[in-house]
Amino acid sequence: MKEFTPEYLDRLKDIIARRDDVQARKELADMHPADVAELYEQLDDLEEAEYLIKLLDGDHAADVLMELDEDERRRLLADMDAEDIAKQFIDHLDTDEAVDLIQELEPEERDEVLSHIDDVEQAGDIIDLLKYDEDTAGGLMGTEMIVVNENWSMPECIKQMRMQAEDMDEIYNVYVVDADDRLRGILPLKKLITHPSVSKIKHVMEVDPPSVKADTPIDEVALDFEKYDLVAMPVIDSIGRLVGRITVDDVMDQVRESSERDYQLASGLSSDVGADDSVWSQTKARIPWLLVGIASGIVASLILSGFEAQLSVVTALALFIPIIGGTGGNVGVQSSAIVVQSLANGSLDIKNFSSQLGKEILIGLLNASVISAVILVYNLIMLPEEPAVTVSVALSLFVVVMFATILGTVVPLTLEKLHINPALATGPFIQISNDIVGLIIYVGVSTACLRFFGT
Amino acid sequence: MKEFTPEYLDRLKDIIARRDDVQARKELADMHPADVAELYEQLDDLEEAEYLIKLLDGDHAADVLMELDEDERRRLLADMDAEDIAKQFIDHLDTDEAVDLIQELEPEERDEVLSHIDDVEQAGDIIDLLKYDEDTAGGLMGTEMIVVNENWSMPECIKQMRMQAEDMDEIYNVYVVDADDRLRGILPLKKLITHPSVSKIKHVMEVDPPSVKADTPIDEVALDFEKYDLVAMPVIDSIGRLVGRITVDDVMDQVRESSERDYQLASGLSSDVGADDSVWSQTKARIPWLLVGIASGIVASLILSGFEAQLSVVTALALFIPIIGGTGGNVGVQSSAIVVQSLANGSLDIKNFSSQLGKEILIGLLNASVISAVILVYNLIMLPEEPAVTVSVALSLFVVVMFATILGTVVPLTLEKLHINPALATGPFIQISNDIVGLIIYVGVSTACLRFFGT
Repeated sequence: MKEFTPEYLDRLKDIIARRDDVQARKELADMHPADVAELYEQLDDLEEAEYLIKLLDGDHAADVLMELDEDERRRLLADMDAEDIAKQFIDHLDTDEAVDLIQELEPEERDEVLSHIDDVEQAGDIIDLLKYDEDTAGGLMGTEMIVVNENWSMPECIKQMRMQAEDMDEIYNVYVVDADDRLRGILPLKKLITHPSVSKIKHVMEVDPPSVKADTPIDEVALDFEKYDLVAMPVIDSIGRLVGRITVDDVMDQVRESSERDYQLASGLSSDVGADDSVWSQTKARIPWLLVGIASGIVASLILSGFEAQLSVVTALALFIPIIGGTGGNVGVQSSAIVVQSLANGSLDIKNFSSQLGKEILIGLLNASVISAVILVYNLIMLPEEPAVTVSVALSLFVVVMFATILGTVVPLTLEKLHINPALATGPFIQISNDIVGLIIYVGVSTACLRFFGT
Repeated sequence: MKEFTPEYLDRLKDIIARRDDVQARKELADMHPADVAELYEQLDDLEEAEYLIKLLDGDHAADVLMELDEDERRRLLADMDAEDIAKQFIDHLDTDEAVDLIQELEPEERDEVLSHIDDVEQAGDIIDLLKYDEDTAGGLMGTEMIVVNENWSMPECIKQMRMQAEDMDEIYNVYVVDADDRLRGILPLKKLITHPSVSKIKHVMEVDPPSVKADTPIDEVALDFEKYDLVAMPVIDSIGRLVGRITVDDVMDQVRESSERDYQLASGLSSDVGADDSVWSQTKARIPWLLVGIASGIVASLILSGFEAQLSVVTALALFIPIIGGTGGNVGVQSSAIVVQSLANGSLDIKNFSSQLGKEILIGLLNASVISAVILVYNLIMLPEEPAVTVSVALSLFVVVMFATILGTVVPLTLEKLHINPALATGPFIQISNDIVGLIIYVGVSTACLRFFGT
């Protein structure tokens, strides 16, 4: 990865200060768009950064724009009118990126930008793509691809390819369709080079290639890419017609984003923040779950206040309040994490709800037995004079572990069934529920035990 | 994704039972290796599954083998001798996959398998690759690639490519080197087709392509793939000579695995388990952290037992034990998750240790103020007769939040500095530490407050 030294940045700032267009262009000419974007973000002065991006030629500038952080991009576009956005950027982008950009604009600005796109065919494609749900294959695909007819010959195919490929950055496969535009096969570029022939494409192509329907959820698309080791995949409509293609770079971004989102949900962060976000946006992401935690702490205090009489007689009961909530939380987080992750990587299917629950109950019984036995032995030795406390703690822990295991399995599976992200049910949610439920169990079991032992 | 219906499986089992080789081969012939692997895993009878894999031709069988789960693969290989493993599988694999397979074998078996590889050049490459650390670019790369000299002409290059490409599955780029094997550029296949010419390659190639040194950690390799939207990347040695290439499918597996590992560590799972693992392996993965939790619960009870005298006088203090540990845990998990994730996706650099800590302290102050104010107001209204408790709880929460914020930032950053996975410091570790520290703070602050208010 490119590292920009402070010396380099100083030299560049100097070039910018002199408005030395020739030298500045030379610096940027062979730089990868992602590196220019990084440079842009390291120049704290917005004016300097904008000067640079305006020097770039159309394709390069558009690529740099799409490599910027969403916030930076928004700041840069805020100063521009719809026509400039269309002509300087959209005209130079692939349709899938153009759609991403347009979706970031204010709704009232979108139509105006669309109306200024030069190429009517591109504009039409973008309008079609905007109809797809963002979280489906259709929302991720672009329409730039080489399409050939199965009845063409290989030389004809290569001729077509030279014509169609002019504006395309990356091509890995040629898509083969029939007269009705239905996907019939693919032809890897490698084959075009290593096996030149005059045969018809349909005799050379790979038939039945992996493909997805446009309404397939993105998570499933990602699993297909991983399963079949793909770099690009054709997208078809409900009657098998080729409508677009998805590339692996977009899928990889999705895999990273969705695992980050699950991790954040599990950590009690209510929005996507990183260490480089401002103090204010980080606080906003953290405070909601913390307040839920405080509310639940207040509920816990109310539950315990109904138990104050017993606590004042047998204060030893108070000593085990932390272990009850803590263990319930730990058990619940483990169970829910396994469910969430296995749903995400495809190793668990929602259809197996009851068998998964059965398995978890077995695991819960094992864990509960070990944990209760440990604490029982400890308390028998350490608190021989308090049999009621000893039995209450061991019994409560057993029930709490069983309950937390079941809750940690049932809640995420139920959310998945309701098409809500199951990761919501991990982390603080499960910690807090198990804390409260654990206390109720502890209060109930202890009260019964105290009565039984006649304390 | 392919779904196998119960009817299909029944029909196939029938074919297997009849040992109908011709029909069985026909069923599998055009099936993607990943689908055959799935089929294999759905046949519960190992004998049936092995019968199928033995019917496949060499390349197909080897590809299927590498798509199996590690456990299944181990079971299948356990019955085979070293020579068969070499000839039936290794001979048909790319070097990077062959290395993965050999690393899964028992150390004493490795040399024997290597000695049975037919192609000496391939064996030599594998032995070289085995020297690299698994977590570096060298450990992930393979040596199958098209390499051409910068002084060749395009037609010469295509001729060479046809010769070299025979055995390769996927080719996206041609790598261009100088007479000393130093990487000079790449030539995308697209250019070979769309811009045929007789010029020398060095005039057509893309210069200065993204590349990595062989000792680059895998996480950085993945960030480069994402940054530059790559499908393959050349790997060079310390003096710039081309030694291999990494493909995007391997990188994507890495991204998935490393985010799963972080998530598991954060959820208190001590090894990589999924919902499809056995009750026993899941219990083994869960019980260690649960026992740590129990030990810490016992420590908590000991801390509180030193506080029993005060608790028996002011039982209201016991009501707020859950809120103290819970809040500390939640705050710590949030801080550590942000640090861990930002380190993983490259948005935080370990060099910014102190500025990150400063920022976290500010965020901690904001959160601590809000939380303490909420609980202060609540207790002033609900417990007007217990000023000592009200002040103790609010003050303790403030200190606990600050402490948890700092611990949640410093511990993962320190682990990263020590080259230990910072994700270890999230989840139960931070929960448990903050629980204990929170109680100590609460006991200390309350004791002081009780004395101050003369209760």
